Amino acid sequence: MSIDIELDKLATFSDVPAPAVTRVVFSKVDLEAREYIKELAAVEGFQIREDAVGNTFIRWVGSEPDAPAVGTGSHIDAIPHSGRYDGTVGVLGGLDAMRLLRRRGAKPRRSIELLLFTSEEPTRFGIGCLGSRLLCGSLDTSADDRLKDTDGATLREVRTGAGFTGLLEEVPLKSGYYHAFVELHIEQGPLLERSGIPLGVVTAIAAPASLRVYIEGEGGHAGAVLMPDRHDALTGAAEVTLALERAALQTGSIDTVATVGICNVFPGAINGIPSRVELGMDIRDIQLGRRDQVLEQIAKECDQIAAKRGLKIKRELLNADAPAECAPLAIQALEAACGGTRYQRMVSRAYHDSLFMARLCPTAMLFIPCRAGVSHRPDEYATPEDIARGVDVLAGALASLAA
Amino acid sequence: MSIDIELDKLATFSDVPAPAVTRVVFSKVDLEAREYIKELAAVEGFQIREDAVGNTFIRWVGSEPDAPAVGTGSHIDAIPHSGRYDGTVGVLGGLDAMRLLRRRGAKPRRSIELLLFTSEEPTRFGIGCLGSRLLCGSLDTSADDRLKDTDGATLREVRTGAGFTGLLEEVPLKSGYYHAFVELHIEQGPLLERSGIPLGVVTAIAAPASLRVYIEGEGGHAGAVLMPDRHDALTGAAEVTLALERAALQTGSIDTVATVGICNVFPGAINGIPSRVELGMDIRDIQLGRRDQVLEQIAKECDQIAAKRGLKIKRELLNADAPAECAPLAIQALEAACGGTRYQRMVSRAYHDSLFMARLCPTAMLFIPCRAGVSHRPDEYATPEDIARGVDVLAGALASLAA
Repeated sequence: MSIDIELDKLATFSDVPAPAVTRVVFSKVDLEAREYIKELAAVEGFQIREDAVGNTFIRWVGSEPDAPAVGTGSHIDAIPHSGRYDGTVGVLGGLDAMRLLRRRGAKPRRSIELLLFTSEEPTRFGIGCLGSRLLCGSLDTSADDRLKDTDGATLREVRTGAGFTGLLEEVPLKSGYYHAFVELHIEQGPLLERSGIPLGVVTAIAAPASLRVYIEGEGGHAGAVLMPDRHDALTGAAEVTLALERAALQTGSIDTVATVGICNVFPGAINGIPSRVELGMDIRDIQLGRRDQVLEQIAKECDQIAAKRGLKIKRELLNADAPAECAPLAIQALEAACGGTRYQRMVSRAYHDSLFMARLCPTAMLFIPCRAGVSHRPDEYATPEDIARGVDVLAGALASLAA
Repeated sequence: MSIDIELDKLATFSDVPAPAVTRVVFSKVDLEAREYIKELAAVEGFQIREDAVGNTFIRWVGSEPDAPAVGTGSHIDAIPHSGRYDGTVGVLGGLDAMRLLRRRGAKPRRSIELLLFTSEEPTRFGIGCLGSRLLCGSLDTSADDRLKDTDGATLREVRTGAGFTGLLEEVPLKSGYYHAFVELHIEQGPLLERSGIPLGVVTAIAAPASLRVYIEGEGGHAGAVLMPDRHDALTGAAEVTLALERAALQTGSIDTVATVGICNVFPGAINGIPSRVELGMDIRDIQLGRRDQVLEQIAKECDQIAAKRGLKIKRELLNADAPAECAPLAIQALEAACGGTRYQRMVSRAYHDSLFMARLCPTAMLFIPCRAGVSHRPDEYATPEDIARGVDVLAGALASLAA
């Protein structure tokens, strides 16, 4: 079956009507989508293994089964009301590359393994790349009881409820498990489209940080409490939101981005002064120092706003990761596989599971263009031609790395 | 049974644990609470009537049943996570005043009628004083299909689902239905407590306005979309929120208050740029001109913010009511009933169903102190002594007006 039909089919596992996709990790539709991928893999006779956090390993066993394998893969979870290509192109594309090689009669020496990572998106547990963080040991197993979803259920409760009942201690991969890892992904930016170059070889992945900011003021009646007597959590949150935007702009670099994506207001009545607000923030840069400068700036401004408005403002850092350098071994395999097709070296501003796979083994990424650089939206789009070209180059890289 | 025990019992009809109260109109707990009030009234042998929108009339028939009645009453709906005295003191206090007069052997000439108004709070349908607006004819019956709750259900669907199946056309009261109307209520402000005066006779009610503001921008990936390319609906909403606060402060009058109580963000993911935000705003003043000046100011600023940030901002005025003057007949009845107890004349900054009853008949309100001026919060509190004093004075005023 063609990958385009499979991408369409995968998009139907969603909690919202098409073209939007909502597929939160361990939701019913996520589990159904996983089943669909595993069925496609089973048809090919690939071996399937799942770990305690739901990372799924689909292996085409090589002629030297004990040699470090070559990995590829991505994620299938999708943030609320997003699109159908982010992550899925790397999962179904990875599978398609393996099928392509098989049909061409390839007999890889190393095993080639497709990885479906659990919860690359931070939607449910507030932290992105949950599966790959655990695989590379950068997240310790206390996460099992520490991480809670928006309903207050722990990771342990949610994953075991979804049928993943193993020990989190067994998730980290041993050193030498992979020889190399390469991830196919849509660019999620406009550069390839603008330059008219159909492929990007990623040499570095930007450093993401995210935090929750809890703002506590005093509620009360919107008619009766006079303005000078107020400690309105939402006007404080508005100042924090604008301060973050300003901090990102003030670094002077186009590569600094910062976003408040979540703003939950309590009690949320039109005639009640907000007593509590929770903000969810995302801050990124390809330069760690500049990213941390924004973190420091927003911490300082939170304190000032709290003092000025008589609010309590508490910050909780969810993650602040270092950027990743991609490895020459993986970069060169991708570049060689491009053959005569034009490509450009580039940086990934979005983070990916490859950010953490890079801590385990030589890693690189292959980008294909997406329309207008749009992602995380229902109108996210990549052409069948660009996807096919990406799959073809990925197959070439996997073959050479596994030889 | 004592009113204090009845207030405690009424507070148990709530969707959240004590001491907080959430009782949204036509929710299961609201309907149960209404049953409780009607049972208390039935014990006394009072007549009970309900109209098509659920306004409930509890009548002690006077010796001249056809004479215009004397009304009292308030509401029992409670905004999310609020307290147990707002509105309820006027409903159970009105009932208690009627019982008190009966036990004293009063034989009123005019009927005395307790009114339980539907949806004084705007929580469900976005507009406050729904029941009293309809009673006085200031809201036309197209509201039945026009007003929608947060789930998109129309007023007609929700009220008939709750068992109120009559025609909305039959709700407005005829001119001359009431001789006078007096409402007992907690002050919802700090003035009585500060002055140590236990009673307030309200001579005017401030003019409320509320609006929804819809802000539409462009979503996208929080890592990949560069700052200059963004049309972030939430940073726009933050500017609108602060502009409203500024507009209220700039009138230079302590009597102007403005609040953003609702801020709903879409899609609401930590790594997604907000594409849409809906704000709920409340603006009040005892002077209509100053209130409307804030409305004009925020309209202008919304347009400026939209232009600057490449957003679409749409405003929807939910209501913009005139202030009410209370009537000498009702004011004097309350003042006379205060007897030797100290009282002060005052203005109500919060709106009440009396704002609309004042359009039907001579109306006034009696305020009792509430701790620290707090209302719409779980720690809202009025002492049993203050409540009893209010009930006693209300009873005196009802008796003299009904004589």
